[in-house]
Amino acid sequence: MTTASSNTIKILRTVQQVRQWRRQCLLNGKTVGFIPTMGALHSGHCSLISQSLKDNHHTIVSIFVNPSQFAPHEDLEAYPRTLESDLKILEDFPKGNVVDAVFVPKISEMYPSGITLEVPKQKGAFVTVQGCSEQLEGASRPAFFRGVATVVTKLLNIVTPDQVYFGQKDAQQCVVIKNLVKDLLIDTNVNVLPTLRESNGLALSSRNAYLSDEVRDQSSIIYRALSNGKAFYETSTKKTNQPVKSSDILNEIHHTLESKPDNFNIEYISINHPQSLEELEFVEPGVGAIISTAVRVPKEKEEGEARLIDNVVLS
Amino acid sequence: MTTASSNTIKILRTVQQVRQWRRQCLLNGKTVGFIPTMGALHSGHCSLISQSLKDNHHTIVSIFVNPSQFAPHEDLEAYPRTLESDLKILEDFPKGNVVDAVFVPKISEMYPSGITLEVPKQKGAFVTVQGCSEQLEGASRPAFFRGVATVVTKLLNIVTPDQVYFGQKDAQQCVVIKNLVKDLLIDTNVNVLPTLRESNGLALSSRNAYLSDEVRDQSSIIYRALSNGKAFYETSTKKTNQPVKSSDILNEIHHTLESKPDNFNIEYISINHPQSLEELEFVEPGVGAIISTAVRVPKEKEEGEARLIDNVVLS
Repeated sequence: MTTASSNTIKILRTVQQVRQWRRQCLLNGKTVGFIPTMGALHSGHCSLISQSLKDNHHTIVSIFVNPSQFAPHEDLEAYPRTLESDLKILEDFPKGNVVDAVFVPKISEMYPSGITLEVPKQKGAFVTVQGCSEQLEGASRPAFFRGVATVVTKLLNIVTPDQVYFGQKDAQQCVVIKNLVKDLLIDTNVNVLPTLRESNGLALSSRNAYLSDEVRDQSSIIYRALSNGKAFYETSTKKTNQPVKSSDILNEIHHTLESKPDNFNIEYISINHPQSLEELEFVEPGVGAIISTAVRVPKEKEEGEARLIDNVVLS
Repeated sequence: MTTASSNTIKILRTVQQVRQWRRQCLLNGKTVGFIPTMGALHSGHCSLISQSLKDNHHTIVSIFVNPSQFAPHEDLEAYPRTLESDLKILEDFPKGNVVDAVFVPKISEMYPSGITLEVPKQKGAFVTVQGCSEQLEGASRPAFFRGVATVVTKLLNIVTPDQVYFGQKDAQQCVVIKNLVKDLLIDTNVNVLPTLRESNGLALSSRNAYLSDEVRDQSSIIYRALSNGKAFYETSTKKTNQPVKSSDILNEIHHTLESKPDNFNIEYISINHPQSLEELEFVEPGVGAIISTAVRVPKEKEEGEARLIDNVVLS
């Protein structure tokens, strides 16, 4: 049964309902844009949605906290589920410029063979993208991108969108998904939109809510350091149009980071090929690279640290 | 460029060409049936094609020897490639009852990130179906069903058929693909058609060509043994409607196989759940089972053995 929320957004609960809706769009010759999310919507998501509303006749958002991308020790249970406020955010888009549908499936709808978080005990079909899933964010979370690739494959098979939207903030996720779509010959266009930032440059993230005002201010050093690395690369290539040594770019970044607070812990800073994510010894103009980092910073109210990720793209 | 063979069968070489053809079928409200093959077409394939021609407005066959399902020591190079005679077979279907299109892609079309046979060195997206890929045929060929699942996912994403057809002969492949389609939420119906047999009961296979007349005759014992196991189960359940011990069914099969030639080597005989392929201690009426076997028999002309597989389904 399809139910409508107070505005005109259709809430679709089953694969069957999405397929019906999609088929109608197709038969009417209308294009469909899709934004997959885990809910807890913020302005980053909204910028993807706005772009889809511009690009396509119809737009659909999915809200699904995907179990298979969480390890057993991770916080699947604690992950924020804020469906009501998410719907409110979607309804509050300017009149006449609102998404058409939200897909909010149950776990059993997305994992018909069931799903346990322990990988060796899992049954059913899973998708891995080899070569770009093991490094960087994948190093500390070995099954993370397998979970992401699996759920995105399912969602793309259900929605079959003309355009699908992701944020550059999750740079490695974007690479995994681009390779997935290319290799599995999924008929959609992957759009990666720029990272939204706070006025001091800090990348927008739900995790920024964990930070005190002081740490939030201090965290601006992350983007500043990456930007200095990027500026160094651009200055070098403008002069010589020659490949630039990654170690020289990294030196520049580390130089900026010398003034970081002592309780900021850098997990990695890495320079990788923009399509394969292979680590690069040199960055070649025209090929480019992604410089990415993960930094653990103190939380305001709880014990422990918040993990901030960010990246810049060299071209 | 689309080229036409002497009959009216379109030969499509690229993903793009298949999508164009498929989109036209969809816009015309026509259904599409699909038979994925590795070529070397025989009457088993033809029975799948005939069924698709009956069931659908349009039928497409793919011919692609899929590298990723071969291990480095296996015979990818030696695998028969008989495109001309395959096309001849397709053209010789009765007039007005011929497939519409054949998809004959290059490897680079199906594996845009390239493909090596060494799994740890592979790059790109791969699909595994956990729980039903590791036992039986998967035990001796650990990456085989990963290769099958990956190429079938790609082909289904390209063709998006209403109906897709496989033969019961490859029982485990059918289970893997049914689970794949269910779990990845691929919008198609999987049709499994009965095994075609020679008059003595031997399951049709390109590999039967390796056998001398004598061994071919002797090989009929494989199906006779499986059938006796099935008859034992059916007699038991007809009497009692109670679960039957798998070991009792296996005893019956082994009893028949006592008169097999000494140079026939049984690799396995196994009774498994029809959907999960878990090994069963009891077969329950209404749930049923697959009894499957692999037997190595002497080749006629070369050193070594031909590996024959067969199965029967209990309901």
